[in-house]
Amino acid sequence: MSKQWKVAVVGATGAVGREMLKTLEQREFPCEVTPFSSSRSAGSKVPFRDGELTVKELKEDSFKGFDLALFSAGGGTSLKFAPLAAQQGCVVVDNSSAWRMDPKIPLVVPEVNAHDLEWHPGIIANPNCSTIQMVVVLKPLHDVATIKRVVVSTYQAVSGTGQKAIVELENQVRRLMSGHEANPEVYPHQIAFNCLPQIDVFLENEYTKEEMKMVHETQKIMGDDSIKVTATAVRVPVFYGHSESVNVEFEKPITPQGARAILSQAPGVRVFDNPSEKIYPMAIVAAGEDDTFVGRIRKDETIDNGLNMWIVADNIRKGAALNAVQIAEELVRRELLRVKK
Amino acid sequence: MSKQWKVAVVGATGAVGREMLKTLEQREFPCEVTPFSSSRSAGSKVPFRDGELTVKELKEDSFKGFDLALFSAGGGTSLKFAPLAAQQGCVVVDNSSAWRMDPKIPLVVPEVNAHDLEWHPGIIANPNCSTIQMVVVLKPLHDVATIKRVVVSTYQAVSGTGQKAIVELENQVRRLMSGHEANPEVYPHQIAFNCLPQIDVFLENEYTKEEMKMVHETQKIMGDDSIKVTATAVRVPVFYGHSESVNVEFEKPITPQGARAILSQAPGVRVFDNPSEKIYPMAIVAAGEDDTFVGRIRKDETIDNGLNMWIVADNIRKGAALNAVQIAEELVRRELLRVKK
Repeated sequence: MSKQWKVAVVGATGAVGREMLKTLEQREFPCEVTPFSSSRSAGSKVPFRDGELTVKELKEDSFKGFDLALFSAGGGTSLKFAPLAAQQGCVVVDNSSAWRMDPKIPLVVPEVNAHDLEWHPGIIANPNCSTIQMVVVLKPLHDVATIKRVVVSTYQAVSGTGQKAIVELENQVRRLMSGHEANPEVYPHQIAFNCLPQIDVFLENEYTKEEMKMVHETQKIMGDDSIKVTATAVRVPVFYGHSESVNVEFEKPITPQGARAILSQAPGVRVFDNPSEKIYPMAIVAAGEDDTFVGRIRKDETIDNGLNMWIVADNIRKGAALNAVQIAEELVRRELLRVKK
Repeated sequence: MSKQWKVAVVGATGAVGREMLKTLEQREFPCEVTPFSSSRSAGSKVPFRDGELTVKELKEDSFKGFDLALFSAGGGTSLKFAPLAAQQGCVVVDNSSAWRMDPKIPLVVPEVNAHDLEWHPGIIANPNCSTIQMVVVLKPLHDVATIKRVVVSTYQAVSGTGQKAIVELENQVRRLMSGHEANPEVYPHQIAFNCLPQIDVFLENEYTKEEMKMVHETQKIMGDDSIKVTATAVRVPVFYGHSESVNVEFEKPITPQGARAILSQAPGVRVFDNPSEKIYPMAIVAAGEDDTFVGRIRKDETIDNGLNMWIVADNIRKGAALNAVQIAEELVRRELLRVKK
């Protein structure tokens, strides 16, 4: 029997935390799991394998004896507890944005830059969901044709906000269909039957934080600051699955056929591109799947070496829980599931 | 009392036809209206002013004695009946795509190119909904800074497909929320809680017809074939109001503040752009309104002279019925509501 890693899942009662437990189980990650949460949810049960686990309250000394902690409990919790875990010898894969742009912390999508795990200091950051699915597709194309500029517009599902936003969309749909008001609480405006051109807060440059994550995280993961990205991030009334309209300008010539050939060999990518049969990526196709789907690949005639494409993935799986577990698997494979002293 | 024009509304029982009747009434266009439809809907009633009108069956000689016909009954009907109407001395404003790219037929958005009405031969084409709202915003900026290239991704409401698609979205939401299958009929795939990256049919270049309309109609309306447009057209689960993420590269420098100042003076445009107060255009804000809303105007740092913006309008009003009635108003104002012999 292989080594059983001691794994803590922090934020285990949230949408991503639950998916982390499910993913550890589905991928048969060899582990004993302990779920943690704030005192509010401590004591509740979460499903795991054939039974249930009781959620423990997260405390400063919770990580003694643990090998790995998967965090998805918000930036504040990560800022405070991730360094404590690392000090206690427990490697953290953190799904919040707290550590992503710290130059001492690797930001990793295993298909793209698993090599950056080599220099982890005990904390590894899991990127933003919108960025993960984009770079999985862009990296193999960048290796061949060198990306100059990306113009991306997103169509993001409410599950990215968490369980309470899923409930909000359901409730708003029910209320509106029976003639009542939407009564937004989680989002600043009605999300049912509407598109919200705001995800996360606005920054001084009038972009949202979500939009700037796509700019900066793409450069860090791809290891190339010369890649220019401009983004518009939009919430749409979809439960699971982020879609992205991505326009890419390359330095070197690349055809749609060439891009399809490259992407059909790329890890974690599924080419789903047969317009005559009405086959293209969609949120309802990607939901529950591990792969990132790409289609509608076509030549942009307005520039030299341009392509348009449509990229869709399950934002809770590849966009969060799955990518975190894939990082853990890669840490095991590379014998890096330990904190260097 | 001013002259009462004799107006035919062809396709009066459809979503756009009904909105045409409402718009003629709301804007007090001086007219006597007769609604027409195919034999299938003839005899039914449509609301107008304080009463109802009985829909007549469209026939080859229906247009005798009429001054104006507003068509919204599909391309086939327009191809056959618009020339017959013009021969009978009745000016046609046609909402289908049948005549739009005919070089002898003007394609008009009154705020942009009302002057093209001067050479109408009895038929005037009303542009595609997605194009109308984009050019209303782009034209005043083009006049000042000269547009080189546009990258647009759309978020289009189901009402653009017609009444049956509105019913399909309602029904699918009800079915899915009660645990049943979506059963798509109007669209090739489920539209509820999903995004469909296909609007209209695919062409040989792998773009959809809707996407290429945005390319070619923009150039014709703006009277400038040097404006390059690349488009991705996407259907989203929204009832009314098309949203567009628009990235624009200009030849000359233009700032977000400058663009806002220009647009705040532009006819038919409402600047709705105060992120700190969470004010930006949305489908639920634009629905039922005449103006095209623009916001999220910000500098694109990845190119010289670039701006990103978010443009939203009611696709049935400014995108169809209102623009057609505005064309009729402009024809009256310019004394062009007659067919030249």
